[in-house]
Amino acid sequence: MPEVSVRGQQMPLSPIRKLTPLANEAKRQGVKVYHLNIGQPDVESPAKAIEAIRSIDRKTLEYSPSDGFPSLRQKLTGYYSKFGIDVKADDILVTAGGSEAILMAFMACLNPGDELLVTEPCYANYITLAVEAGVNVVSVSSKIEDNFALPPIEAFEEAITPLTRGILLCNPSNPTGYVYSPKELLQLKKIVEKYDLFLFSDEVYREFVYTDEPFLSAMALGLENNVVLLDSVSKRYSECGIRVGMIVTKNQAVKDILMKYCQARLSPPLLGQIAAEASIEGVEDYLAAVHDEYKARRDFFIKRLNSIPGVHSPMPHGAFYTVASLPVEDSEDFCRWCLTTFRDKGETVMMAPASGFYRHPGMGRNQVRLAYVLKIEDLARALDILEAALKAYISR
Amino acid sequence: MPEVSVRGQQMPLSPIRKLTPLANEAKRQGVKVYHLNIGQPDVESPAKAIEAIRSIDRKTLEYSPSDGFPSLRQKLTGYYSKFGIDVKADDILVTAGGSEAILMAFMACLNPGDELLVTEPCYANYITLAVEAGVNVVSVSSKIEDNFALPPIEAFEEAITPLTRGILLCNPSNPTGYVYSPKELLQLKKIVEKYDLFLFSDEVYREFVYTDEPFLSAMALGLENNVVLLDSVSKRYSECGIRVGMIVTKNQAVKDILMKYCQARLSPPLLGQIAAEASIEGVEDYLAAVHDEYKARRDFFIKRLNSIPGVHSPMPHGAFYTVASLPVEDSEDFCRWCLTTFRDKGETVMMAPASGFYRHPGMGRNQVRLAYVLKIEDLARALDILEAALKAYISR
Repeated sequence: MPEVSVRGQQMPLSPIRKLTPLANEAKRQGVKVYHLNIGQPDVESPAKAIEAIRSIDRKTLEYSPSDGFPSLRQKLTGYYSKFGIDVKADDILVTAGGSEAILMAFMACLNPGDELLVTEPCYANYITLAVEAGVNVVSVSSKIEDNFALPPIEAFEEAITPLTRGILLCNPSNPTGYVYSPKELLQLKKIVEKYDLFLFSDEVYREFVYTDEPFLSAMALGLENNVVLLDSVSKRYSECGIRVGMIVTKNQAVKDILMKYCQARLSPPLLGQIAAEASIEGVEDYLAAVHDEYKARRDFFIKRLNSIPGVHSPMPHGAFYTVASLPVEDSEDFCRWCLTTFRDKGETVMMAPASGFYRHPGMGRNQVRLAYVLKIEDLARALDILEAALKAYISR
Repeated sequence: MPEVSVRGQQMPLSPIRKLTPLANEAKRQGVKVYHLNIGQPDVESPAKAIEAIRSIDRKTLEYSPSDGFPSLRQKLTGYYSKFGIDVKADDILVTAGGSEAILMAFMACLNPGDELLVTEPCYANYITLAVEAGVNVVSVSSKIEDNFALPPIEAFEEAITPLTRGILLCNPSNPTGYVYSPKELLQLKKIVEKYDLFLFSDEVYREFVYTDEPFLSAMALGLENNVVLLDSVSKRYSECGIRVGMIVTKNQAVKDILMKYCQARLSPPLLGQIAAEASIEGVEDYLAAVHDEYKARRDFFIKRLNSIPGVHSPMPHGAFYTVASLPVEDSEDFCRWCLTTFRDKGETVMMAPASGFYRHPGMGRNQVRLAYVLKIEDLARALDILEAALKAYISR
């Protein structure tokens, strides 16, 4: 039998999805599972998007342009301008979700063996997609006791080697919900300029900021040739399944290379683009309502979470996740036990062990990432279960 | 300014799409361009697929499972069984088009620096996607004078080195339209067994075979741990835009690795899967009609093509392409000239220079790949233009 690839073996399992087989088995047994593990909102997509899909009048579901429909890219320029992101349609390439945007950006900008600095805990698929691209993720640790703020700039300086080619920031952060301040971004800017690095800025949660301070995009830092914006409609319009993301950059050489990658996989999803395009304009009320809904969920969720003995979560100011510490030694063991063993009136809870969001082995071992994407009544029930589970686990 | 990646620079431009800017410029000038360059059929998708999309009743366009909807994978087992491909739903992983299937299969099975044997001329994106995966494509040449039949098995033996890890066959072939016979497949089987290689079998055109001999899938060769089937609904249901492909294998280790790649990009397109699933059952009449339509187009196209002085095309027995030789020295120059300079009553033709489908430099320089995916009246007009263009080009 031929051997599978070494890189495939090295690829870590997704910490968000690797316990899914256990959850599926619990469901098979009739157990109700509350999913705090995954950022799959129960929020409805814009009605305009559904209507656009329901009213397609095409007879042939043909390829779209490799870099996406011009009309979609044009509408996106208007969307971006509201955030001080001044780009042209030609600066935007449409991808099969934010995931493809990340992979393509890595492929186009970084060589195998290059090092990419990432603050940890980080979105776990930065690590898996970097392995796919042969890129080494070097993490700079942020700390729960600092509310996961940007690590001191000296920590970045110390991590830089001759192989360092870029910094990747998720702002607002998945998994911590931290929103980087203009001051922090200006500190990063200095490092990017000093070492002439790529700055990959994943801003898919920019609609979900719960402070009064305006959100500052990396594209507004005046680093035109360094910044590669990674984006997606998945979260802002609750359209995770349509797989429409984008890469935005003004670096012409990067754009030229990206176009080759886009052409190699022919085109992004046609139907998803139709839904995405219909979602961009005239959805102010929708976005405001969704924003307020998440803010209310956050307020409820974090307060209730911190009321559980031994649990600590910082107050996240953006996105819809938090990384919380639990009064357990090994959160993965606890998460597995919740799925395989613990039941509260035939129900249990699924969480993502946080160690998979860290690059340094052993870090975040007592932490979990939780997504507050469910209705408040479901979040309340999920946290009641979590509290009962912790009590039972500790005293078992 | 930070440098783009070396691998990005090494990535060849798609020979199918690289002349698109010239075509767009011609169209901007009001010129009508007949596209013989790309396998984008003008054939309608099944009405059932469009209807499934038009009648979705979801409110949230959420993630699907990373390996695709179980119901879709189950229906596919029924489809495959009609071709003697005996697989279970768990042997199938749904991808974002056949392109992602190819890339993921390379990533999961091959290491950077590994060699993959491919018959040339080959589908050009095997080369680009291999560059993306760091895999070296080593080509074994088939010849136009042999109608692009399988090269002698000795040529494969000669090409094998200690780095060879797999063979990739496209059957029926894009770009040549050749259908490999059971005898040829059995010859390949011996090599695959002798060297314990992966056999990647791209069979996206299996519905389009115009001989009476039944199509033999590599999955029916009894090489369960070696064969990785690459597939897509794009061509068989004229649904290129929905980006739904699949990888089929019974090798459990490969499946386990592939699942990690699937999870790293979260999920395949939701809406495309809905269209694909609606296309699988009860479309016998549709497929028969499409088959007959392509056969009629082929019969017309190849006969007319060979009637042009100096042009030669073998008779393809499958898919909807042919590689033809033209009475020119440099077909790429001719293809460019057709788009930039030649006009016949304000119309011209776009073709794909064949050299991009060869790995050996200089091969196929006088050849083009042509897709006969247009209505016969459009094909007739396109070939009239080609004949006039050749005459003008040669005497210019």
